[in-house]
Amino acid sequence: MSNRCNLPIGVFDSGLGGLTVVRALRKKLPAEDVLYFGDTARVPYGIKSEETVARFALQIVDFLLAREVKLLVVACNTVAAIAARRISEVAPVPVVDVIAAGAKCAVEVAQNRRIGVLGTIATVRSRAYERAIQRLDPSAKVFSKACPLFVPLVEEGWLDHPVTRLTAEEYLTPLLSESLDAIVLGCTHYPLIKAMLHDVVGRRTDLVDSADAVALEVERILETQQLRNTPAPTASLRCYVTDFPQRFQEIGERFLGAPLPHLERVSDFA
Amino acid sequence: MSNRCNLPIGVFDSGLGGLTVVRALRKKLPAEDVLYFGDTARVPYGIKSEETVARFALQIVDFLLAREVKLLVVACNTVAAIAARRISEVAPVPVVDVIAAGAKCAVEVAQNRRIGVLGTIATVRSRAYERAIQRLDPSAKVFSKACPLFVPLVEEGWLDHPVTRLTAEEYLTPLLSESLDAIVLGCTHYPLIKAMLHDVVGRRTDLVDSADAVALEVERILETQQLRNTPAPTASLRCYVTDFPQRFQEIGERFLGAPLPHLERVSDFA
Repeated sequence: MSNRCNLPIGVFDSGLGGLTVVRALRKKLPAEDVLYFGDTARVPYGIKSEETVARFALQIVDFLLAREVKLLVVACNTVAAIAARRISEVAPVPVVDVIAAGAKCAVEVAQNRRIGVLGTIATVRSRAYERAIQRLDPSAKVFSKACPLFVPLVEEGWLDHPVTRLTAEEYLTPLLSESLDAIVLGCTHYPLIKAMLHDVVGRRTDLVDSADAVALEVERILETQQLRNTPAPTASLRCYVTDFPQRFQEIGERFLGAPLPHLERVSDFA
Repeated sequence: MSNRCNLPIGVFDSGLGGLTVVRALRKKLPAEDVLYFGDTARVPYGIKSEETVARFALQIVDFLLAREVKLLVVACNTVAAIAARRISEVAPVPVVDVIAAGAKCAVEVAQNRRIGVLGTIATVRSRAYERAIQRLDPSAKVFSKACPLFVPLVEEGWLDHPVTRLTAEEYLTPLLSESLDAIVLGCTHYPLIKAMLHDVVGRRTDLVDSADAVALEVERILETQQLRNTPAPTASLRCYVTDFPQRFQEIGERFLGAPLPHLERVSDFA
């Protein structure tokens, strides 16, 4: 039994979208304390160069490691695509990244090995899900589709709006004829439109929510490494951000599915 | 006649959208050299706090002033809303900001003084167009509407797509019953959907393109201050960016309406 059990889990993302991962973690592992870092002054990462994204990510990893986390969650798909390996190399704690977790879950549910992946342009272009899936199952077929408008639609709150549905139909039409077993929601924002996406793709296709997949993987690692916290009714969530953006309260609560705790601004970034 | 005539005009924006202003400038003032700065590593500004935006803007102003520009154009609506006055105070050259220029043009065309303004959430929330318009004509009525999805729709290239049209109808419906004389396109991205917006609002309402308004105002100032360059067939455009983002070539050329010149990355920002 490690004495590190009562340390928090560190979760980070380019912005507030990673709070969907925090929501899934708190549901599955309610005894765990969480430190969340959202790089709100420099969001979005998906349009930036790989070099810039990697540099930003390593700054945040240093920040969280300095606060003694027992496990790191890379909730940002862009960072996971570009820098997951480098983060694992520098971090002395287990690292769970949203792409590896989502890929694992997709391979488990896709009986006919036909898997779709939805993500931002950067995530799709990186082919990181494709590589992660085919590492687990080289015979899997992966069909990816960049859906850049889903993030702003979710941030606008148009979760079940005709515009969002029409956009989804436009993006997903090429995938519908591929008889997919599962589609990975490869972006922290997409869980909020999961119900609508399920209508569009039909009930025969599983939707793999990568936030849930991360929570599963974190649980497994804490279990095998004997790092689970003893149940405590007072599990805490602390959030650090690099800026207080417009509408962060409204948008953050939509992602977290609960009132936002006090956010602390970190000023030595950006 | 000033010996500063052959210095370039400095134009800056949070990203590449300000190239619509460069396009309008080059059309109206083809003899003028232009230095463009796009803060692509830190775009978008519209979701950031005022303090952060002002700090970023003043860094860029220093950068352009160090390269001896004869006039500064604040092409970014968010910066114009938050920091135009501070920039004018520190800059030893004339400053043209997109909001003041757009407001002036709107007041000139709106005979019944009923003016609409479309912009990002930050621009609309700042009420900067409203203040600028009412400073020129205190009896003007201003009706503002934030249209946060227009920027990602333009960047997706869905310039005349059913989704964009449906989004425009949703955003503009509250304005249509107000018998507006003119609507200001208060964001660098909106000129690209001007034709579609005109269909939605009807031909009785003028659309004020703030990129054109800036070019007009720059021409007026160069004229009155005797700063016009002597006609040269070799007028140049140099572009500085803080990052090479995804799709910058495709998106930048869409805004500029011409092949992008070589972009130079400035690494001491962000």
